[in-house]
Amino acid sequence: MLAICDISCDPGGSIEFMKEITTIDKPFCLYDAEQNMSYDHFSGPGVIICAVDNMPAQMPRESTEFFGSLLMPYVYDIMSSDAKQPFDKWEADPIVKNAVITSNGSLTPNFEYIAELRDAKRKQSAGRARSRQAVKHRLLVLGSGHVAGPLVEYLQRDASLQITIASNIRPDVESMASKYNCQPVFADVSSQPDVIEGLIADHSLVVSLLPYRFHPRVLKMCLRARRNLVTASYATDEMRELSKEAKEVGITVSMENGLDPGIDHLLAMEAIESIKEHGGIIDKFISYCGGLPAPQHSTNPLRYKFSWSPEGALLSTLNASRYLKSGKIVEIPRGGHLMLAAQDIEYFPGFNLEGYPNRDSLHYRDLYGIESAQTLLRGTLRYRGYSNAAWGLIQLGLLSETPHASLHPEGPDITWKQLLCQLLGKPRDIFVGTLKDAVFAKVGRDREKFQCIEELGLFEDKPIEKRHTPLSSISCMLAEKLKYKPDETDVIIMVLDLSCRFPNGTRENHVISLVKYGDPKGYSAMSLTVGYQTAIAAKMLLDEEIQDRGLVLPLSMNIYRPILKRLKAEGISAVAKTTEIEG
Amino acid sequence: MLAICDISCDPGGSIEFMKEITTIDKPFCLYDAEQNMSYDHFSGPGVIICAVDNMPAQMPRESTEFFGSLLMPYVYDIMSSDAKQPFDKWEADPIVKNAVITSNGSLTPNFEYIAELRDAKRKQSAGRARSRQAVKHRLLVLGSGHVAGPLVEYLQRDASLQITIASNIRPDVESMASKYNCQPVFADVSSQPDVIEGLIADHSLVVSLLPYRFHPRVLKMCLRARRNLVTASYATDEMRELSKEAKEVGITVSMENGLDPGIDHLLAMEAIESIKEHGGIIDKFISYCGGLPAPQHSTNPLRYKFSWSPEGALLSTLNASRYLKSGKIVEIPRGGHLMLAAQDIEYFPGFNLEGYPNRDSLHYRDLYGIESAQTLLRGTLRYRGYSNAAWGLIQLGLLSETPHASLHPEGPDITWKQLLCQLLGKPRDIFVGTLKDAVFAKVGRDREKFQCIEELGLFEDKPIEKRHTPLSSISCMLAEKLKYKPDETDVIIMVLDLSCRFPNGTRENHVISLVKYGDPKGYSAMSLTVGYQTAIAAKMLLDEEIQDRGLVLPLSMNIYRPILKRLKAEGISAVAKTTEIEG
Repeated sequence: MLAICDISCDPGGSIEFMKEITTIDKPFCLYDAEQNMSYDHFSGPGVIICAVDNMPAQMPRESTEFFGSLLMPYVYDIMSSDAKQPFDKWEADPIVKNAVITSNGSLTPNFEYIAELRDAKRKQSAGRARSRQAVKHRLLVLGSGHVAGPLVEYLQRDASLQITIASNIRPDVESMASKYNCQPVFADVSSQPDVIEGLIADHSLVVSLLPYRFHPRVLKMCLRARRNLVTASYATDEMRELSKEAKEVGITVSMENGLDPGIDHLLAMEAIESIKEHGGIIDKFISYCGGLPAPQHSTNPLRYKFSWSPEGALLSTLNASRYLKSGKIVEIPRGGHLMLAAQDIEYFPGFNLEGYPNRDSLHYRDLYGIESAQTLLRGTLRYRGYSNAAWGLIQLGLLSETPHASLHPEGPDITWKQLLCQLLGKPRDIFVGTLKDAVFAKVGRDREKFQCIEELGLFEDKPIEKRHTPLSSISCMLAEKLKYKPDETDVIIMVLDLSCRFPNGTRENHVISLVKYGDPKGYSAMSLTVGYQTAIAAKMLLDEEIQDRGLVLPLSMNIYRPILKRLKAEGISAVAKTTEIEG
Repeated sequence: MLAICDISCDPGGSIEFMKEITTIDKPFCLYDAEQNMSYDHFSGPGVIICAVDNMPAQMPRESTEFFGSLLMPYVYDIMSSDAKQPFDKWEADPIVKNAVITSNGSLTPNFEYIAELRDAKRKQSAGRARSRQAVKHRLLVLGSGHVAGPLVEYLQRDASLQITIASNIRPDVESMASKYNCQPVFADVSSQPDVIEGLIADHSLVVSLLPYRFHPRVLKMCLRARRNLVTASYATDEMRELSKEAKEVGITVSMENGLDPGIDHLLAMEAIESIKEHGGIIDKFISYCGGLPAPQHSTNPLRYKFSWSPEGALLSTLNASRYLKSGKIVEIPRGGHLMLAAQDIEYFPGFNLEGYPNRDSLHYRDLYGIESAQTLLRGTLRYRGYSNAAWGLIQLGLLSETPHASLHPEGPDITWKQLLCQLLGKPRDIFVGTLKDAVFAKVGRDREKFQCIEELGLFEDKPIEKRHTPLSSISCMLAEKLKYKPDETDVIIMVLDLSCRFPNGTRENHVISLVKYGDPKGYSAMSLTVGYQTAIAAKMLLDEEIQDRGLVLPLSMNIYRPILKRLKAEGISAVAKTTEIEG
C-alpha cells in the first residue's frame, strides 16, 4: 500500500511519525505502524510513504486539472465567504461551509478539536525537544505493567536520557507515551524477536519488566548486542549460568532490584555490615516481607487482593521450604504444608499478620555472609487467616495444577458447586446442604475455612471459566473477585530482625522496618518501591556508578548505600530500633 | 506607664497593633498587650499609648531643644557619611554608625532583619486586607489545640469571615496567626472572664475548642451576649439544662460536632433513616470508633499513643458501662471491669483490633430512634492488648485517682520501682527480682501484663514527676513516653454494624466503615476529622442553614446530609456494604 501524506496540512500533527518530508532523490520510505518505526528499505511489514510538504507542487498536471474540475462547482460559494461576518450567518453549500477551518480569527465549531490536538502535540514535542537537545543515553524498557509508570517517571527526570518502552499490550504503551516522556513501541518478545533484537541493538541499556521466564531470552539478545540488562527478578540458576558469558563479553546483568528481592537485600546488607564493622557476630537473621491490601481493604475471605494474576501467589502456597532454627535445618515438603507452618508475626501490634518461610532461606547464609547465624529465616507476610483459607482450598483440590477433565475449555459448562461435588466424589445434583456437610468434614470441621469457601461463592451454581486446571480456573475467578477497586490501595510491610553478640559480651537485637502505603490516586506501594529501586539501579549503570561485569546483585556497599539514600529522598525509608538483650 | 510610639519610624511593623495614630483631640489610648486589644478608656491593665506619625511636630519646644542638644555631638560624624562609599569603610562614632539603617541602597548588617519582618508583615497584611474587604461575620474560636488548625484552615476559605482565636497558650495563638488568616488574642477563660466576655460580645458566633468542663461557663456568657455556640463535645446534663434557656433567648447551641460524638451520629442517622424509609425495622445497632497510632507506629506496651493528656483516656478505662445484647441489659460496674469486657473486633482482618463498650449505649435508643433494636452497643476501639495492659496497671493501683502520700509534689523524691514496692506493701529496698516476682503474682501471672509493666520502665529506679495521684503521675510519664514522634501519624477507624428486617421477611446487614490516616507532614486524622466537622457545623450556623434554637445535635437529615457531603469533598467518606442475611 502507498500513502501520500501532506505534512503542510496536518494541523493536529496526527502524522507526526514522519519526522521530515521525503525528497525527490529519496521519494519513499517504509513505515511500520505496529512498531512506530520507519525504514529506508521496503521489505517486511508496513506502508510505503511519500511525505510532501506542498502537495500540488509535486503532483502531475492531469491530477491538478482533475482536482480543479472537482473544485469548480464550489468556487462561487467560496467567493461569497466573508471572514469578517459571523460564521453562523453565512449561507453556503455545506460541502464548502464544513470545509472552513477558521473564520473571524478563530477555529470554526467543526475544528475546535484542533486546539486540543495542538496543545497535546506541543506538550509532547516540548518533552521530546528537551530530550533531543543532548541525548546521552538511549534506554529500552521491555514491558508496560504497573511497575513501568514509576520506573519511567523516575528515569525521565534526566533530560539527557531517551526512553523507549516496548510492550505487547497496545493500550498500556499508548498510555505510557501519553503520560511520560517516552517513545512507545508495540511489539511482542515471543512472536517478534527480530523487532526486539533490533531495538536492543539501538539502545545502550535494557530494563526488562517482563515476567521472569522471558529474561533468559532477553539476556541472550543482550549478549549478542553487548548491552547491559537490569531486572527486578530473582537470579535463577539459568540466569546465573548465562551471566558467566556476560562477564566474558563485558556486560553487566543487574538483578534482584525489586522490593523482595531488592530493598530487603539493601537493608539486610546495611545492617549486617554495620554490625560486623563494630565487631559483632550475627546469631539470628529473620526477614519478612509482604505486599498486602491496606488493612481497611482487607475484608475478604483470603484477606488478600491481587493486582496481577493470582496464579503465582497461589502456586507459592504449595512450595517446599527450608530454614534454620537454633542451628537445626527445618524442611517443609511441597504440597501446602507451608500453610501449616504460618506463625503470628507481632512486630507491629496494630497489623494482624502471619508469616511463613519463603523457599530456601539457607541460600542467604552465603549470599549475606552470615554463616554464624543459628537462626535464619526469610519469610512472606500475609494477614492472619490467609494460610488457613489457602490450606482449605488445597484440601479440596482447588489449587491443583493437574488438568481436570471437567475443566477443558471446550468441554460442557460446569458450575463451582458441580466442580466441588466432582472433587469430593459426590453426584453433581446433591442438595447444597449435603455438599456443605461434606466440605465441612473435608476441611477438618474448621469454621473459618468453611466460611472462606462459602464467601468465595464456591457453593453457588455459577459457571466456571474453564482453564484446564483447578488452579488456573480459580485464579481466573479470584483475579476478578479480589481485585483492587478504584479507591483502594495496598501497603508493603518489610521487617528485618537480627540478633548479634559483641566481643565484650553484650548482645543486641536490631529490628529494621519499612512500611509504605500506596496512593489510591497514584502508584501502588508495590509498583512504587519496585519501580524506583529498579530505576535507580538502571541509572547507576548508565552513570557508570556500577562497573562490575557479569551478574550483579545489590549486595555491596557501593551499591546499597547510594540506592538507600536515593530511595529515602523519594520517601521510602526504614526505621531501625536497637535494644540490648539482657541475661 | 506611658509609651510614645512613632509609627513613621517603625520599619518592621513591630508596633502594628496601633491601627492608626492617636490625634490631638484623642491623644491617648489604653493598649492591653496580653489580649492584643486597645481601648478608649484607661481603667484595667495595659499601657497608655500616644501614637504619632511625625514625632517632632507634636513635641513641645523644650523637648525639641533637649533632643537637639543630645544630637549635637554627633552632627560632624553624621555629615561625614557618604552613602556612595562602602559602608564598612566608613569610620564614624559607633553610636552614629550603628544608627544607620540603609547605605548604598541596602539595609546595613545590623538592620538586615527588617527585610524578614517586612515579608512576614506583608503576608499577614495581605490576608487581613482581603478579609477586611467585606466582613460579613466575625467568628471567635476559643482554644488553640490540635483541632484549631484544620478548623480555621477550613473557615478562612470564606474571605468574608473574620476569625479571632483566643487561647491561654501564647506560642499556639502566635503560631496560628502566622499560619492562618486570623487575629490572635492571648487570654484565659478562668482568670480573665471579662476579656472573654468582651470578645464574645464583639463576635457573631463562638466556637469553643476548650476542654468540656469550660463549656457551661462559655455558654453562660453566650446567653448574656445572645451569641450562638458550637462545640465538638458531648452534650452533658448541665449543658442540656442551660440550653433550655438558650432556646428561650433564641440562640443555638450546636454540640457533638466531632468524630465520636459527631461523624458517628451523621453516619448512624443516615443509615437508620435510609433503612426506615424502605420500611425496615432495626434489630441490631453496633458502632465502634477509635483514634489510634497508624499500625506501623503501634509498637509499644499499650499499643497506643497520646497526642494530648493521657489522663482522660486512662480514666475512661475505669468507667461503668451499659449496653443491650439480644434484648438483655448488660451492666459493667466501675473500676476497670470494662477492660475484661474487651472483645476482638474483626471487621477489618488486617487491623488487630479489640473493642469495649463506651459508657451508656442505651442512651442512643431514643437519641437515634432505634427502640426496636435488641442489640445496641457503642464502643471504643483499641489495638489488641491495650485492655489487658490497662487491667494490669489497674491491678497494681497505678490508675488510682486517690492521692498517695508518696506522690505529693513537695514530698521527697521517689522512683517508679519504689512506688511499685509501696503499692504492693513491700519494703522499698527489696531486690528488683523479688519485686518482679511479686508483680507477676499480682497481675495473675500474665506474661503480657508483666511485659507491659517492664517495658514501661516501672521496675527502674527513675524518679517520678509527682502529681498527687498515681493516675496523674503515670499520665505525666506516659505523655512523654508514648507521644507521637515527628514522622509518626495516627489513623481513625469507625465502623457501624446494623441489622434490620423488612416487611417481606428479608433481613439485611449493613456495615459502614470509615478509615482515615493522618498526614505525617500535616494534620493528624483525629484533628482533621474533628476540625472539619466542627468547622462545617459553624459555617452552617453562620449561613443560617441551621436555624433551630436551643441544643442542636447533628441528627436531622437537613444537617447530616450537607455535612456528610462536604466532608466527602474533603476526602473524608465512609464505605457501606450491605449483605442479605440468610435463614
